[in-house]
Amino acid sequence: MPMNRQILLDNRPQGEATADNFRLVTTETPALRDGQVLVRHHYLSLDPYMRGRMNEGKSYAQPQPLDQVMLGGTVGEVVESRHPKYAPGDKVQGMGGWQEYSVVDADQPGALRKVDTTHVPLSHYLGAVGMPGVTAWYGLVKIIAPKAGQTVVVSAASGAVGSAVGVLAKARGARAVGVAGGPDKCRYVTDELGFDACVDYKQHKDANSLSKALKEACPDGIDGYFENVGGMVLDAVMLRANAFARIAMCGMIAGYNGEPIPMAYPQLILTNRMRIEGFIVSEHMEVWPEALNELGVLVGTGKLRPRESVAQGLDAAPEAFLGLLKGRNFGKQLVKLV
Amino acid sequence: MPMNRQILLDNRPQGEATADNFRLVTTETPALRDGQVLVRHHYLSLDPYMRGRMNEGKSYAQPQPLDQVMLGGTVGEVVESRHPKYAPGDKVQGMGGWQEYSVVDADQPGALRKVDTTHVPLSHYLGAVGMPGVTAWYGLVKIIAPKAGQTVVVSAASGAVGSAVGVLAKARGARAVGVAGGPDKCRYVTDELGFDACVDYKQHKDANSLSKALKEACPDGIDGYFENVGGMVLDAVMLRANAFARIAMCGMIAGYNGEPIPMAYPQLILTNRMRIEGFIVSEHMEVWPEALNELGVLVGTGKLRPRESVAQGLDAAPEAFLGLLKGRNFGKQLVKLV
Repeated sequence: MPMNRQILLDNRPQGEATADNFRLVTTETPALRDGQVLVRHHYLSLDPYMRGRMNEGKSYAQPQPLDQVMLGGTVGEVVESRHPKYAPGDKVQGMGGWQEYSVVDADQPGALRKVDTTHVPLSHYLGAVGMPGVTAWYGLVKIIAPKAGQTVVVSAASGAVGSAVGVLAKARGARAVGVAGGPDKCRYVTDELGFDACVDYKQHKDANSLSKALKEACPDGIDGYFENVGGMVLDAVMLRANAFARIAMCGMIAGYNGEPIPMAYPQLILTNRMRIEGFIVSEHMEVWPEALNELGVLVGTGKLRPRESVAQGLDAAPEAFLGLLKGRNFGKQLVKLV
Repeated sequence: MPMNRQILLDNRPQGEATADNFRLVTTETPALRDGQVLVRHHYLSLDPYMRGRMNEGKSYAQPQPLDQVMLGGTVGEVVESRHPKYAPGDKVQGMGGWQEYSVVDADQPGALRKVDTTHVPLSHYLGAVGMPGVTAWYGLVKIIAPKAGQTVVVSAASGAVGSAVGVLAKARGARAVGVAGGPDKCRYVTDELGFDACVDYKQHKDANSLSKALKEACPDGIDGYFENVGGMVLDAVMLRANAFARIAMCGMIAGYNGEPIPMAYPQLILTNRMRIEGFIVSEHMEVWPEALNELGVLVGTGKLRPRESVAQGLDAAPEAFLGLLKGRNFGKQLVKLV
């Protein structure tokens, strides 16, 4: 059996996560039992939710256990199989974690899924046509539910989730406005993804200033907001919200390090009769087929052109992850292992 | 025609409202035109939302115009009528405002409603069987929608809205927990209204301390919260919220003076997949008949025993209103005019 390099959670962050929280080890992959499949990972997905799991204590996800392989989504190829439905060469998507190989009990529900790479590149099954894409779909379609002509704002707009939110909103006749960090990301959001406007939050030092920029980008106010970051952007959006605005709360990167990030104007929820709803896509498995179908078509027809930031080799995963938390990635953050 | 004493909004509050914001004037009631009714007000309703309307600028309600009679709910008796459906002696509920008499265009939708005082005292049509009661009903039934066995918390629990929320929650098999100020109010909430527990927020100087008390009162966590006050109580409740908790946001007295009252832990909306929804009962007229029917039965059968704080005479209205904003009332705040 091949040797397998793995990254474990060595210790929990005190405040900001650092490279010292991780540890690289090498082990031998165990021999397969009946029903198991050995997968060689081609790509590893890095996602903001992983930072939440590194903390101890109450959160929506179980904490990542210490001294175990960091959990995460993977795509790869079957190299050995003792399961009748899988053969060497099959391309598969799973939750293999931060390691080069995984041994999977293929009958476990949701453990492994064959994917078709005829029209969609393998890596996109970790992004636009995977968990981040379905996350965008659920928040936009089931919570924000924009009508044609309404305005939808999304933060982290150049990211794997945000880019899909805007394209899905446009497909429903809504005005899509992104918030992103820096001119390159904003240009991608408007020119390649087709958003109507994008506001560079790095040009603004407080919520009032950002809110003025949003007023220009959203002349009819804001009807829906897809929240990926928390903090100043949320406050600025709320100041421009229309009556009956909906906020889908998907991520709050700003708060992962444990410092409290208050919402400045909760009274606007009342005065604007807003609805704010937090969700986790893994609790809504019933929407996945419909969502993946629409997302696959959008990618296949070139309407959604996902960007990827690809780090090379397992050793690069911790630094790439820390960069993601600081917004240094551009599009979906991946680690290429093959 | 009788002389009519009126209280006008003289100027807008700078920070806290004061008695100087109001002005008492005396005018003659105009002669009736066809279709009009002259109503002598027996009771005038004082409600927290009025403070919001005293501010200028964007809010859910139109601002109260300067130099005009303060808007507000009234119950009274028809003393003169040029409308075929109303006769002197009829008991009616309307929006007569802070004055002793009003001239009403009786055909205007929602302007006037005859009420039956056989089983329900006239004043209760301004409280439990009126706008505050329907407010409680909408937030509890349509937003919180508690299942039997779930825990519902309500702030300002001894007030007109809060008391109805708890009794409606109990009627649905939920555990009802109040938050109120002082031992007398808490005793009324548990002993007379039948709540399962009541926490005296005045015994706690911050959200953490209040949250510990809520943990004792809500051993299975909090599934629904009816928000009447904002600030520290909201933070304390959110710290005890269960997954998929719902918050009906009805009032935020704490924020009416314009000072920002941040929500300390918005990330809990995400980690607990909460839903927070602001609403105004006047935008949901379709529920009024069903709600008033249930509330009338609860009052008529003694299951909901509303308390009233009654100020005497129109002159007393401003001070009674300022006391309401500081929580000095006990139950529904009224002004008796006859």
